[in-house]
Amino acid sequence: MDLVAEVRRGKLRAIARTISLIEDLEPEAESLVDALYPHTGRSLIVGVTGSPGAGKSTLVDKLITLERGRGRKVAVIAVDPSSPFSGGAILGDRLRMQTHATDPGVFIRSMASRGFLGGIAAATGDVIKVLDAAGYQSIFIETIGVGQTEIKIVELSDIVVLVLMPGAGDEIQAMKAGVMEIGDIFVINKKDLPGADKLLAEVQYVLSFKNPTGRSGERNQSEGGGNPVLMTSAARDEGIEQLHRAIGAYAEEIDGSGRLADKRRFRLQRELLGILTRKVHELMDVQIEVSKQLPQWAESLYRHRARPYALINEQIGNFLREKSNDREN
Amino acid sequence: MDLVAEVRRGKLRAIARTISLIEDLEPEAESLVDALYPHTGRSLIVGVTGSPGAGKSTLVDKLITLERGRGRKVAVIAVDPSSPFSGGAILGDRLRMQTHATDPGVFIRSMASRGFLGGIAAATGDVIKVLDAAGYQSIFIETIGVGQTEIKIVELSDIVVLVLMPGAGDEIQAMKAGVMEIGDIFVINKKDLPGADKLLAEVQYVLSFKNPTGRSGERNQSEGGGNPVLMTSAARDEGIEQLHRAIGAYAEEIDGSGRLADKRRFRLQRELLGILTRKVHELMDVQIEVSKQLPQWAESLYRHRARPYALINEQIGNFLREKSNDREN
Repeated sequence: MDLVAEVRRGKLRAIARTISLIEDLEPEAESLVDALYPHTGRSLIVGVTGSPGAGKSTLVDKLITLERGRGRKVAVIAVDPSSPFSGGAILGDRLRMQTHATDPGVFIRSMASRGFLGGIAAATGDVIKVLDAAGYQSIFIETIGVGQTEIKIVELSDIVVLVLMPGAGDEIQAMKAGVMEIGDIFVINKKDLPGADKLLAEVQYVLSFKNPTGRSGERNQSEGGGNPVLMTSAARDEGIEQLHRAIGAYAEEIDGSGRLADKRRFRLQRELLGILTRKVHELMDVQIEVSKQLPQWAESLYRHRARPYALINEQIGNFLREKSNDREN
Repeated sequence: MDLVAEVRRGKLRAIARTISLIEDLEPEAESLVDALYPHTGRSLIVGVTGSPGAGKSTLVDKLITLERGRGRKVAVIAVDPSSPFSGGAILGDRLRMQTHATDPGVFIRSMASRGFLGGIAAATGDVIKVLDAAGYQSIFIETIGVGQTEIKIVELSDIVVLVLMPGAGDEIQAMKAGVMEIGDIFVINKKDLPGADKLLAEVQYVLSFKNPTGRSGERNQSEGGGNPVLMTSAARDEGIEQLHRAIGAYAEEIDGSGRLADKRRFRLQRELLGILTRKVHELMDVQIEVSKQLPQWAESLYRHRARPYALINEQIGNFLREKSNDREN
């Protein structure tokens, strides 16, 4: 079966299989991503991040319901960079999204760090492309925590929703880690907990520096300009409609102003650099494999049937060609 | 001027210039080495190593005189891996070879570590090829000390002469560092110093384990089988003729038995692995250069005029091709 065509038709098994090939760093993943690439660029990618327990999964769950109500296909990628296994805490979170488990218009996938550092961000970038080409209009990327890797991952998004909660030490954390910088829309979830208003004030205070001419410091919701700050209670289904509208409005605004295009261009730059870095790492692994062929190559050299640099350059070239062989399939 | 042709005709300026290109890691060095490679394999490469002060330079100086007496062209590469500059201690040593400074049949070059670790061994391997193609029948590689890098460098030789001296703590050092393993011919220089006989006994004792069936433990000179052990006084010109004969006999012996061919094959394997490793390092540097072109590439991607993996693979391919461009000149 032609995996690329199947993915484009939105076949779930083909999508899941392609994602597995990417996660497992299989050689054919490259050509699959390349073949799907021309059909990407249509999805809105929404990153949802924030400290554990802030209610990100419940929030995403409610947003999916609203998206589905508008007939849009939705995908969720839940990433846990710290865990070497798919599952664990994330699996528990996934259970809360069981509402949509039987909905064929919703695709949910957990990803965890399997190999080298930074690999998960690269894999996530490729998985986004697969889901984009498969026709999911909205793709949510949800991460656990707000570490460096998580920031890298949410930077793959068009819009980043930063979810905070009162009393979790977020007040200090937010200022310290500079995570405020990565957020486009700020959500104070669990707004009924004590300290919610204080957190709101602090977030607005920090944003007043980020958007000195904006109006973000003066309101809870926004339809344009600056960074919207909203208070929600995902569990009680309060404020979700407003958040959903804010995301839509923000997307429209950055699309119109050209900021979305700029964001995507910059993201592509980072992705290319990531691929290049990965290539170099792969070439290092080749060194090990190559040692098996060394006696044979040395024999050619000894008999003056080859030249040292030409030989090595050719071998590296072969290796690269192999990897990108049937790109055009 | 065609540098390759000039080198082959033994033009000193062309040789010196080619070596400089290799040392400076200039891009054209690769193609020059490749172009010269078919004309290599004719020189006898003699590594001379041992602790500082053992009299290696004086010994080489005397050997040059004997070689020249037989009408052979001789080259000396003096390597100091620990020094970031050509010169220093080595320059002082070189002065002792001034005897041959005006002899056009003798080429002397100092090399020092200029860049990354291990680079000096790679550069030395390439310089040997240049001198080989230039028609030097004997190439002496002299190193300071007996560290890991020095061992790597003398392993580029067909024959390794290990020079020891009495009273320099060589007795213990030799056993400890396993440097005895790399020696083919053992020289106890400054044989008039106290402790020379004791050192001789110790070397023979150690060699009796290395060559359990050989005769090396029972004699000072050898014409075949086992590892010759000789006592010299380079300053007084004693034992040099014998050493020169021993080197010649040893070369003939390993050539006849096929051991020289095996040695050279194995050396080519190590050199190829070295080139591959260097390539990977170079590719890492490309990452930095590439960042300038990233915006342009990202724009192509953004407009769907390219595909991410195809683009990167092509760029790496271009880089490699550039390096080995005019190989056939």
